[in-house]
Amino acid sequence: MALPVSPLAPKTYVAPPAIAGVRFATAEAGIRYKGRTDVLLAVFDPGTVVAGVLTRSLCPSAAIDWCRQNLGGGTARALVVNSGNANAFTGLKGIESVKLTADIAAKAVGCEASEIFLASTGVIGEPLDATKFDGVLQNLTGQLTAEPWMEPARAIMTTDTFPKLAEATIDIDGTTTSIAGIAKGSGMIAPDMATMLSFVFTDAPVAADVLQALLAKHNRTSFNAITVDSDTSTSDTLLAFATGKAGIDPIASLDDPRAEIFGEALNDVLFDLAMQVVRDGEGATKFVAVNVTGATSDDSAAKIARAIADSPLVKTAIAGEDANWGRIVMAVGKAGQPADRDRLTIAFGEHVLARNGQRAPDYSEDAATAYMKGEELSISVDIGLGEGSATVYTCDLTHGYIDINGSYRS
Amino acid sequence: MALPVSPLAPKTYVAPPAIAGVRFATAEAGIRYKGRTDVLLAVFDPGTVVAGVLTRSLCPSAAIDWCRQNLGGGTARALVVNSGNANAFTGLKGIESVKLTADIAAKAVGCEASEIFLASTGVIGEPLDATKFDGVLQNLTGQLTAEPWMEPARAIMTTDTFPKLAEATIDIDGTTTSIAGIAKGSGMIAPDMATMLSFVFTDAPVAADVLQALLAKHNRTSFNAITVDSDTSTSDTLLAFATGKAGIDPIASLDDPRAEIFGEALNDVLFDLAMQVVRDGEGATKFVAVNVTGATSDDSAAKIARAIADSPLVKTAIAGEDANWGRIVMAVGKAGQPADRDRLTIAFGEHVLARNGQRAPDYSEDAATAYMKGEELSISVDIGLGEGSATVYTCDLTHGYIDINGSYRS
Repeated sequence: MALPVSPLAPKTYVAPPAIAGVRFATAEAGIRYKGRTDVLLAVFDPGTVVAGVLTRSLCPSAAIDWCRQNLGGGTARALVVNSGNANAFTGLKGIESVKLTADIAAKAVGCEASEIFLASTGVIGEPLDATKFDGVLQNLTGQLTAEPWMEPARAIMTTDTFPKLAEATIDIDGTTTSIAGIAKGSGMIAPDMATMLSFVFTDAPVAADVLQALLAKHNRTSFNAITVDSDTSTSDTLLAFATGKAGIDPIASLDDPRAEIFGEALNDVLFDLAMQVVRDGEGATKFVAVNVTGATSDDSAAKIARAIADSPLVKTAIAGEDANWGRIVMAVGKAGQPADRDRLTIAFGEHVLARNGQRAPDYSEDAATAYMKGEELSISVDIGLGEGSATVYTCDLTHGYIDINGSYRS
Repeated sequence: MALPVSPLAPKTYVAPPAIAGVRFATAEAGIRYKGRTDVLLAVFDPGTVVAGVLTRSLCPSAAIDWCRQNLGGGTARALVVNSGNANAFTGLKGIESVKLTADIAAKAVGCEASEIFLASTGVIGEPLDATKFDGVLQNLTGQLTAEPWMEPARAIMTTDTFPKLAEATIDIDGTTTSIAGIAKGSGMIAPDMATMLSFVFTDAPVAADVLQALLAKHNRTSFNAITVDSDTSTSDTLLAFATGKAGIDPIASLDDPRAEIFGEALNDVLFDLAMQVVRDGEGATKFVAVNVTGATSDDSAAKIARAIADSPLVKTAIAGEDANWGRIVMAVGKAGQPADRDRLTIAFGEHVLARNGQRAPDYSEDAATAYMKGEELSISVDIGLGEGSATVYTCDLTHGYIDINGSYRS
């Protein structure tokens, strides 16, 4: 899998700060890949709370079931992530493998298995041999460190061409608290709760229910607002861990004004990571924001934006640098949402191509074509019926996507 | 658009018989293409009834609106089809263009404009200059012929790489009656009533409401059971014309046993044409039948089958000849329909890859991989919950699709 780095990759990587109460280590367990790390162990101090949003797939992985069950407890002592094998659709073996991994981790860390959170990403359907973690996790507890975050970001990659990191620093009550986040994801990206895998860590003392509410809220406009290929993963996982080590009074309610301050910072991190997933979309050469306004509701706008962003014909036209607004009309038409052909306005960037359901009189094909040659594009559609709006972020559909996905497993 | 002929094209073409009461002619009107026919005029004897199913797109073309309005009348005297320009999203100009075309045709044929049926296919958003039809349609009325059907089949093509024809001959009351059908379609194929364009002609004396009922019924398992790229056209049109010239008593009710006989023959023609559309899917190298059984209802089975058939990850795996059943699980999981991971059975052809939610013990990767090298594939998924079943037909997603759609308009 020696894929060239996405042309849309960030030019530099951020280096999130150490988060008090969080230490981690990575290893080469040889699950599938050779010569690179594929296991992450993150250990949290006692008192760390956890929140999460998980895939809505009706065929989730065994690890998803495990996390869903343990999120009820609200506390976490460790996170174990492996790449190379998703442990999805592995039947009873998968469930046993998850339980064995949690037991090994609980013993290594010294906690209950119910305080272990797990995520697996990679090939679906291959049994995961959890005995490979025996010894490895125990060894890792002797190598725990608080930095650099580049290491865990790399260990969780699959077809990703670059590691994804984000950070935020917040002043609360005169004290600096921080958020560090990592993510992986490149294909099978149409999150129906979260992207494939993302983990966010903070030292802010945020109560579990507050953290859960903020995570769910900001997930909607970040990970749930992206699509690479309309395919929803069996393993989508977004987990947030708050150690409470920041030395400020606990944020125990959404009514606490500091919850909003923290929430905004959390949103910055989630949004940043989600955009990096789109920028690493398999085969991507263009980053595209699809803005829909004037729909009858925000939900309707989101469905229309997603129909546009998921359309293979729209995505191939973008790859071909073709300002093909007819395909935007097609996608609006297939979305099944209230729309009136003769009220639509469509723009690529600042270039209004169509107004009131027909080609704009002042439309310049040359200007629109020149715009399409850029790497960062926006498509704006005004439905002309109401006040609903939404933005979905996506990438183009290129030969690279076919190359990667015609040969991923073999 | 000198595309190579699809490797899945039929080896020979059928030559449907002349249909009494139907004559046609084609011309080069130079709407977009050069050096090929792009206009079809078909003229029907008085007494011809018509039925149709049209796109459910909420942004339909002006011709769709026109046909929908005229289908209420139940009778037809002529059909005018042009390729190269879809006359979709052309605002008031599009409506005027449709009206002018119908007026020109009505004058040439000698009938009411409301008895003229229209279809346009090609680029969306470009105004269609209907004055190009003036003179052309009048000339065509002097060149009408009843054969060969290859001519109209060719005149309506856009990115199609081969003409699509089908026929059926039925013995009713000791009299031979016939059905001739043509279709076009290759991309923007996820019909939500019909494919882009298909026209079926018969000399059977079928009442308009019976014809409509039979057409809608058999459309569900033919054109509405295919997908190339999940994109629903603004111009999907399936029209059936019955001249009643066969010299048998009219089929005036669905309770008439001959309605079923005729319906079966109609189904043969529609299904044949629909499969040809899939076989000419843009860039297709594999024909795939996706069979879903054991779902909680037929509708649920159809939604699951479509999620599989529309998945870019499934389609690229097929292109890569990879028996990647994990992606089938993913697609089942994202369909949003009742499913239980641990009851799924998945087979490629006769090769059962997974049973009860995990890899089948007797699974042979070599045998499955050898099977995937074939051109005609089937994917079978048993949900294990009920009696619902459905089949959706599709093709793979290849570099050819990207090539065609990254440069179609420019």
